Amino acid sequence: MDDERRVLLAHGGGGRLSRELIEREIVSRFGQEALQGLPDAAALTLNTPSIRFTTDSFVVQPLFFPGGCIGDLAVHGTLNDLAVSGARPLYLSLSMILEEGLPWSTLRRVLDAIRAAVRASGTLVVTGDTKVVRRGQCDGIYLSMAGIGAGLEAFSLSPASIRPGDVILVSGTLGDHGMAVLSARESLFLDSGLVSDTASVFPLVEAMLPWASGVRFMRDPTRGGLAATLHEASVGCGFVLDETELPFAPAAVVIADLLGISLLHAPCEGRMVAVVAPEVAEAILAVWLGLPEGCGACRIGRAEGMAGRVTLRTMIGGVTLLDMPHGELLPRIC
Amino acid sequence: MDDERRVLLAHGGGGRLSRELIEREIVSRFGQEALQGLPDAAALTLNTPSIRFTTDSFVVQPLFFPGGCIGDLAVHGTLNDLAVSGARPLYLSLSMILEEGLPWSTLRRVLDAIRAAVRASGTLVVTGDTKVVRRGQCDGIYLSMAGIGAGLEAFSLSPASIRPGDVILVSGTLGDHGMAVLSARESLFLDSGLVSDTASVFPLVEAMLPWASGVRFMRDPTRGGLAATLHEASVGCGFVLDETELPFAPAAVVIADLLGISLLHAPCEGRMVAVVAPEVAEAILAVWLGLPEGCGACRIGRAEGMAGRVTLRTMIGGVTLLDMPHGELLPRIC
Repeated sequence: MDDERRVLLAHGGGGRLSRELIEREIVSRFGQEALQGLPDAAALTLNTPSIRFTTDSFVVQPLFFPGGCIGDLAVHGTLNDLAVSGARPLYLSLSMILEEGLPWSTLRRVLDAIRAAVRASGTLVVTGDTKVVRRGQCDGIYLSMAGIGAGLEAFSLSPASIRPGDVILVSGTLGDHGMAVLSARESLFLDSGLVSDTASVFPLVEAMLPWASGVRFMRDPTRGGLAATLHEASVGCGFVLDETELPFAPAAVVIADLLGISLLHAPCEGRMVAVVAPEVAEAILAVWLGLPEGCGACRIGRAEGMAGRVTLRTMIGGVTLLDMPHGELLPRIC
Repeated sequence: MDDERRVLLAHGGGGRLSRELIEREIVSRFGQEALQGLPDAAALTLNTPSIRFTTDSFVVQPLFFPGGCIGDLAVHGTLNDLAVSGARPLYLSLSMILEEGLPWSTLRRVLDAIRAAVRASGTLVVTGDTKVVRRGQCDGIYLSMAGIGAGLEAFSLSPASIRPGDVILVSGTLGDHGMAVLSARESLFLDSGLVSDTASVFPLVEAMLPWASGVRFMRDPTRGGLAATLHEASVGCGFVLDETELPFAPAAVVIADLLGISLLHAPCEGRMVAVVAPEVAEAILAVWLGLPEGCGACRIGRAEGMAGRVTLRTMIGGVTLLDMPHGELLPRIC
């Protein structure tokens, strides 16, 4: 029966069908104290005055791709914004815009993925909202999440604190998420085995805590990829990347070449880029390599040169400037 | 020039055009300390451990309607969820999904309305996100906001604490928002003078503080209107409404009659329903009547009868049961 069921406009109307959707599909999955009274606002008690607050919307297409779906992607994206700001993620909100006619089974798969990702992270979904729009006014499901985290005072992050000689670390191969989504969307190389890197990077942040004073900058390279992330971090000092050190999945290279996309501009959704003092780089790399989230970690370059300049030393010994991506190469990738 | 400018997919891509949109249109309006570094997460310091956290998405159609637009509606809706939970709104996040081709002037008008509503409320927009989807995958603009507020400990709100004899107060006419939006959407009675009630209800909450211990329940009657709000509050005791006391704007009555909609099920976006102890009802009513947000305030009934039952004493002396709305009479009203 539920296999044929679809989302109706009435599921967003505030009446009985809305309540049924909330109780059967939302509270049943995320029901804990804060959500059970179905309040419009969750009452929370924080044990720190220093918090981080973030939000993101997710419009990825297709909704399901190798390695994940819009649901876990939304959770990870929100957790990661908190994590790279130097915070422990605590609470999430979940706001859904659904298209009339969406199969109920699709909604359930997405909600199941959200639940699994939230549980794995040790956080809670404490408040939410659901709207339904007519067919053709949305593309299946759009999600917006907001997150609250507790600031980790050990970190004192600022791109302005980056000094020449600081080391750039990444936690794994670059651009897998972008290429996995494009491969699913364009039905290209579906048997390549490439999967999205969608994951929480908080374990990588937590692992750096013993060396936190040597960490200048950390970021998950999402839209705009590594290139945009390093440009953003180059306010005080430039960067030099060694092309031979850059980690790429072979299948991602094939897909990127075919589509004419640079993997340096392609988004990750579960990787970390950190710029750290040279004296802590080895220790952080070692602890990252011991984690599932960091098993592909490596050094890729160093801080050097003029602010605003990101340079690539190519395999054949040349030097090229790495541009800030101008526009939208990859719409609806997250 | 800007009059002809439109939103491009590239404005959501994470590259230079994204940054330009954020800097020129977002930071210029909401730029204060927390947002100026363009962090993915805002760092905030709270002076209370007890917070409230809420989220809502907004898909109202048309984007502009008499008395407001999707921008101020989103701010007020988010503030009001915090306010009626017994909290002082502090911080907001703003997540936008834009349709490719949206006129730049429309985006600016919406952002200006957001800024005006945020400033009037004394809160701050501290973090945000923008996505752009292709034409036909969204209807102009969808907004999601989340909000953080500081719990006001004087309130101890619970529908279970409602006792027979408690008084139901409303702060003004019912259903104006729903009828103003429908009138704009259907081009009906555009000269009626009816405007949406979109507003922050926090001044009404703050005004109740001296009598907070006598306040059992407060809610802004949005989707599902007064009927849904009272059904939600009827977990411990029923309610009896006096039809002769219900406040309606004459133009709203005309539009509702024409469309076959009950104003008791129509949404407000700036009204307050409060159930209060009889000994504080007069004092609260008096202070509400002195505020612009409460100048149409009145008593409309009392707690009485079986839990789950909301009864209407009609003008001609009859008694009818007021149903919980079943489905979606009014799609995309907020």
